[in-house]
Amino acid sequence: MYPARPRARELGLRLGSLPPGPHNAITDVAGVRVGHLTLVEGEGALRPGRGPVRTGVTVIVPHPGNLFREKVIAVAYVINGFGKATGLAQVEEMGTLETPIALTNTLNVGIVWDALVSWMLDTNPDIGIAPVGTVNPVVGECNDGFLNDIQGRHVRPEHVFAALRQARGGPVPEGAVGAGTGMSAFGFKGGIGTASRVLPQAAGGATVGVLVLANFGRRDQLRIDGVPVGRLLGDREAGPDHQDGSVIVVLATDAPLSCRQLRRVLRRTTHGLARTGSIAASGSGDFAIGFSTCRGQGERGLPDEAILNHFFLAAVEATEEAVINALFTAPTVVGRDGNVRYGLPVERVLQFMQRYGRMGG
Amino acid sequence: MYPARPRARELGLRLGSLPPGPHNAITDVAGVRVGHLTLVEGEGALRPGRGPVRTGVTVIVPHPGNLFREKVIAVAYVINGFGKATGLAQVEEMGTLETPIALTNTLNVGIVWDALVSWMLDTNPDIGIAPVGTVNPVVGECNDGFLNDIQGRHVRPEHVFAALRQARGGPVPEGAVGAGTGMSAFGFKGGIGTASRVLPQAAGGATVGVLVLANFGRRDQLRIDGVPVGRLLGDREAGPDHQDGSVIVVLATDAPLSCRQLRRVLRRTTHGLARTGSIAASGSGDFAIGFSTCRGQGERGLPDEAILNHFFLAAVEATEEAVINALFTAPTVVGRDGNVRYGLPVERVLQFMQRYGRMGG
Amino acid sequence: MYPARPRARELGLRLGSLPPGPHNAITDVAGVRVGHLTLVEGEGALRPGRGPVRTGVTVIVPHPGNLFREKVIAVAYVINGFGKATGLAQVEEMGTLETPIALTNTLNVGIVWDALVSWMLDTNPDIGIAPVGTVNPVVGECNDGFLNDIQGRHVRPEHVFAALRQARGGPVPEGAVGAGTGMSAFGFKGGIGTASRVLPQAAGGATVGVLVLANFGRRDQLRIDGVPVGRLLGDREAGPDHQDGSVIVVLATDAPLSCRQLRRVLRRTTHGLARTGSIAASGSGDFAIGFSTCRGQGERGLPDEAILNHFFLAAVEATEEAVINALFTAPTVVGRDGNVRYGLPVERVLQFMQRYGRMGG
Amino acid sequence: MYPARPRARELGLRLGSLPPGPHNAITDVAGVRVGHLTLVEGEGALRPGRGPVRTGVTVIVPHPGNLFREKVIAVAYVINGFGKATGLAQVEEMGTLETPIALTNTLNVGIVWDALVSWMLDTNPDIGIAPVGTVNPVVGECNDGFLNDIQGRHVRPEHVFAALRQARGGPVPEGAVGAGTGMSAFGFKGGIGTASRVLPQAAGGATVGVLVLANFGRRDQLRIDGVPVGRLLGDREAGPDHQDGSVIVVLATDAPLSCRQLRRVLRRTTHGLARTGSIAASGSGDFAIGFSTCRGQGERGLPDEAILNHFFLAAVEATEEAVINALFTAPTVVGRDGNVRYGLPVERVLQFMQRYGRMGG
Repeated sequence: MYPARPRARELGLRLGSLPPGPHNAITDVAGVRVGHLTLVEGEGALRPGRGPVRTGVTVIVPHPGNLFREKVIAVAYVINGFGKATGLAQVEEMGTLETPIALTNTLNVGIVWDALVSWMLDTNPDIGIAPVGTVNPVVGECNDGFLNDIQGRHVRPEHVFAALRQARGGPVPEGAVGAGTGMSAFGFKGGIGTASRVLPQAAGGATVGVLVLANFGRRDQLRIDGVPVGRLLGDREAGPDHQDGSVIVVLATDAPLSCRQLRRVLRRTTHGLARTGSIAASGSGDFAIGFSTCRGQGERGLPDEAILNHFFLAAVEATEEAVINALFTAPTVVGRDGNVRYGLPVERVLQFMQRYGRMGG
Repeated sequence: MYPARPRARELGLRLGSLPPGPHNAITDVAGVRVGHLTLVEGEGALRPGRGPVRTGVTVIVPHPGNLFREKVIAVAYVINGFGKATGLAQVEEMGTLETPIALTNTLNVGIVWDALVSWMLDTNPDIGIAPVGTVNPVVGECNDGFLNDIQGRHVRPEHVFAALRQARGGPVPEGAVGAGTGMSAFGFKGGIGTASRVLPQAAGGATVGVLVLANFGRRDQLRIDGVPVGRLLGDREAGPDHQDGSVIVVLATDAPLSCRQLRRVLRRTTHGLARTGSIAASGSGDFAIGFSTCRGQGERGLPDEAILNHFFLAAVEATEEAVINALFTAPTVVGRDGNVRYGLPVERVLQFMQRYGRMGG
Repeated sequence: MYPARPRARELGLRLGSLPPGPHNAITDVAGVRVGHLTLVEGEGALRPGRGPVRTGVTVIVPHPGNLFREKVIAVAYVINGFGKATGLAQVEEMGTLETPIALTNTLNVGIVWDALVSWMLDTNPDIGIAPVGTVNPVVGECNDGFLNDIQGRHVRPEHVFAALRQARGGPVPEGAVGAGTGMSAFGFKGGIGTASRVLPQAAGGATVGVLVLANFGRRDQLRIDGVPVGRLLGDREAGPDHQDGSVIVVLATDAPLSCRQLRRVLRRTTHGLARTGSIAASGSGDFAIGFSTCRGQGERGLPDEAILNHFFLAAVEATEEAVINALFTAPTVVGRDGNVRYGLPVERVLQFMQRYGRMGG
Repeated sequence: MYPARPRARELGLRLGSLPPGPHNAITDVAGVRVGHLTLVEGEGALRPGRGPVRTGVTVIVPHPGNLFREKVIAVAYVINGFGKATGLAQVEEMGTLETPIALTNTLNVGIVWDALVSWMLDTNPDIGIAPVGTVNPVVGECNDGFLNDIQGRHVRPEHVFAALRQARGGPVPEGAVGAGTGMSAFGFKGGIGTASRVLPQAAGGATVGVLVLANFGRRDQLRIDGVPVGRLLGDREAGPDHQDGSVIVVLATDAPLSCRQLRRVLRRTTHGLARTGSIAASGSGDFAIGFSTCRGQGERGLPDEAILNHFFLAAVEATEEAVINALFTAPTVVGRDGNVRYGLPVERVLQFMQRYGRMGG
């Protein structure tokens, strides 16, 4: 609904040192697909339950098979637990993910959870009937109430199904799309962002992909590649002070990491967020979920732990760039009560990046 | 719907050494109320989505005020994370509970979550509209699919509202009631159980109350006050082998514990479960949630850490007795496909308890 | 120095349902060796720094090779953190153990830690010289100050070396030996105990062995196979009230578990302790360390998670029996200031076990 | 022994936005004292056990009273657990610190631990003699083996006592001093650094102080106030590739935070490290310890959780500046085998900072 603007790398930014994959997206991890369903309806005064609607749902599907039968190795990590993500305890205990990951607005978690159950039952009609166990839906969320009628819980099961049906590999729509439709970051319009990194062949050549739902950060703390862009921009085009926000980080890799190793990698997404200016504010629900698409023999690890440093750096860089991509691609959005979140003023940002020696490097 | 049978203590059992409160229930903690809504419909062959229905919802309400405005100090602890409980990360991070705790069947978590949001919005219409934040529903679950059409997700929002409206203090219905309607434990009928302990005046005289949703345990591992009742009973009246099950433990106290102290207390519910024979089986979602009703000044702790030993013992004993109460009170229930969970054969159990020196002590 | 008395199983007790290994000891896990060095000197009034001495050191060596070069998969779990065990953070992070585990008295941890460094340097003279990293000594402890001049820190490096040199497989000396020399449990003499369990062939036939340094528990809480022996014995032969104590649990297995799986197993030692009456008292440092001797290909896991239930039960039962063995084997010891810890009155205990139907089962 | 060079702020750098305290040091938290003992002996070829010696010990003393009797509220947080810090489990469980914190080289942990016991016994001769419990020494470490004869464990008890005796408030010596004598960071000479932040009066006006033992980071990842100084400097004056290193962060505040709140603050030191370029490398033992000097009534918390955001920002900024101070103040040091760690080329760095718009802001 909202046209995406160019990504950071298209405009010449080079964050970090590792090369991205072909799409610089989480879908560079083979088999991973992403689907969005965007809801934009109405404008003007908030009438709870009726609109205006600026929200949606985004799904990340680890592989094209029957995920309940062929679970993937997965871990979760809570950076700051002010959030309502579901399913993480079982992911941690069993080390597996058995549903797509769905992202949406905070108050919609219950309905999306229920929709995931319906979706899974559709292809696995024996779920919950002994000896087959139940299913563990993983849902992440951020608060889009500044632009969206969040109380209305406008994401319905059919929207989740639609997002799942249209999930695909390749380039990933970013910005004000899917779950990101109504989100804000650093006082600007935020939303969906993604990036990837490819490890050196000497380190195994694996791919690490990250997708974020970015809805966090205070304007004056924004940093892009180390440049204090937030302070430099000042208050121009700032809406009312952003609440504490939240961020969901989804990390995928094709490497055969054990849960312990994968959790070590996943924890480094914290460092990536910190590079953009995050202090993991008190009211910010910062959650990370990671999975490996490498299947077939249960959990097993890389024998050389030192190789993980490459994964760490990849996780840091891909997380940083995914957040910056969300900011670059999301345009200005007007929401409920005429609330406006301005898109990051990219022209001026590029001037700052130039002035501070970050372009053409 | 299913009449409860006598509780363990009424039949002469004396588990542990500390005295129970007046109702030997979680409601002995002043202000705590419990509500059940029981759903029993149909019989015969399972027709997913239609029944038979043997399920329900149970709510635990920490105090009669506006919980969103007057949150209570709370903590969570995952004994074994194979489960879908929601809201625990935020409870851990912020140390507060801001909704009633709802218990239900596994696949119904999403709908019950959504119903809690509606319930909270009803009295707090500003939730999610800045500067007011969103709300964190806490839902626990076990799998009642052996007796119930679990895929049908028969607990609807109106059932949750009804349970909340009829929540009350005093004696708590136990056994095959509310969320416990379709649950099994140690190969027998399980469900809701509760118990409490009062600390010595010299230790402050606080009350510790526990309520469990008991749906765990293999028959041959059942122990009652140390007597290996499961082995002694053998296979008589056993249904097909029980799946790994789950248990949710809710602990309440009126003492001013800090989150750190309350979590220390809460972890001891593990020891209470172990006394009944639990090994926290791999597929058992064993979750504990604790709260303190002592309000008004934020988090603060008991200055004397050694006093916690009294709380530890109270938590162990009340958890043990709550599980045993669930077994004693729940009658035989026939569910979907004619599946039968027999009530614990209390007469024979009492004979064993007599023979092994546990009665009239 | 103190002759061990018969073990529980030799006297007819049958704890749990799984069969023990040939020695019913942690050494049933192939390659695991145990060494003790016992220090008993002087009697009469405590003269800090001079004695009387009732202490020692116990070492558990995972395999006969160069452990620094061939690390074993390992995890740690803190049941109650009032203790000074060292090395656990690195075990958790890296998932490996690279030194023998040493157990001793609380104030001796520093010296024993340093001795382990010296021991490791002896066979690995490149430790700490780049590119070789440093080494992570794992030391566990309990407080033996009721009987021992604990301030004297009488365990010296040469004692640690002696224990390491005489470490061996086969039957393990128990009771008032090595680190257990001065320990108390449930108001009686405690110390070293061990036990093992062999899994069914259908579950892979692995061995789980446990060794405990038992120094915890209040007399009235002692339970043996569910019989409330502590209450039945009353105060006869009780010394002054036991402090909160501590317990260190070391678990070994030969199965190829991932760190995640091994930690799941290790956590169940809590349930084993609970069966003996533990409430993990506030001042009790209850730590568990687990390792797998299965080497050669880094971390990898059992593909079938459900098989873990067998390991869980084995961990529960072996832990329970190890504690009971410590109590059965440890004789009465007179220590500093004439303090006496009586050995468990085994004759009377056996009468209770008989009366309560636990013998000849 | 090695003269410190000017601190970052003295040279015009302004990291972050909150104002520092009077000394811009952890000692700005009233009552906190720091003591160093520096050992520099010999040069030339490494002769293990004999030298050359480039090491030491640093102690942080929370208040001038009897710390064992008047413990302070404390927490610990493991950022990356490849390290040998001791005492953290008890700090976490009990929420208190009862000894000074000592920092030293990795292999010296045992001896320093033992020295802390002796020191504590000296003023508390009843430690370990019932009913008085034992004591929990907290020791942190990094590996200084590139410059120092680390196998020699040259820090002896008398060195620890000397550091404790000369601990004082006010300005804190930084750089190649105490435990920092032989440390490296980002391929340059590292060591001790400190900084502080004062919160706005509207947020309570508390002080947050940080001291780091900085021994981590790869040169090309170094960032100072966002400027990629490491890349810009290139390989000039680089020694051999730095090993993964480690960092210990000690955080102090005078605010009455509960353990839960203090841990939330402490976790944000991760973000501060990330700002300097840390990715928490696999072999880097990154540990944080925090305490509150606010005593007298046990654990209690700030009633307004949102105020914590100020503490979060303070923790991030003070950690970042403490690391940069370590780099700025530490001069070039020549150690064993003629190994050289060059001091950060401050002149050139300042030119970069100027060129990238970070000076005179």
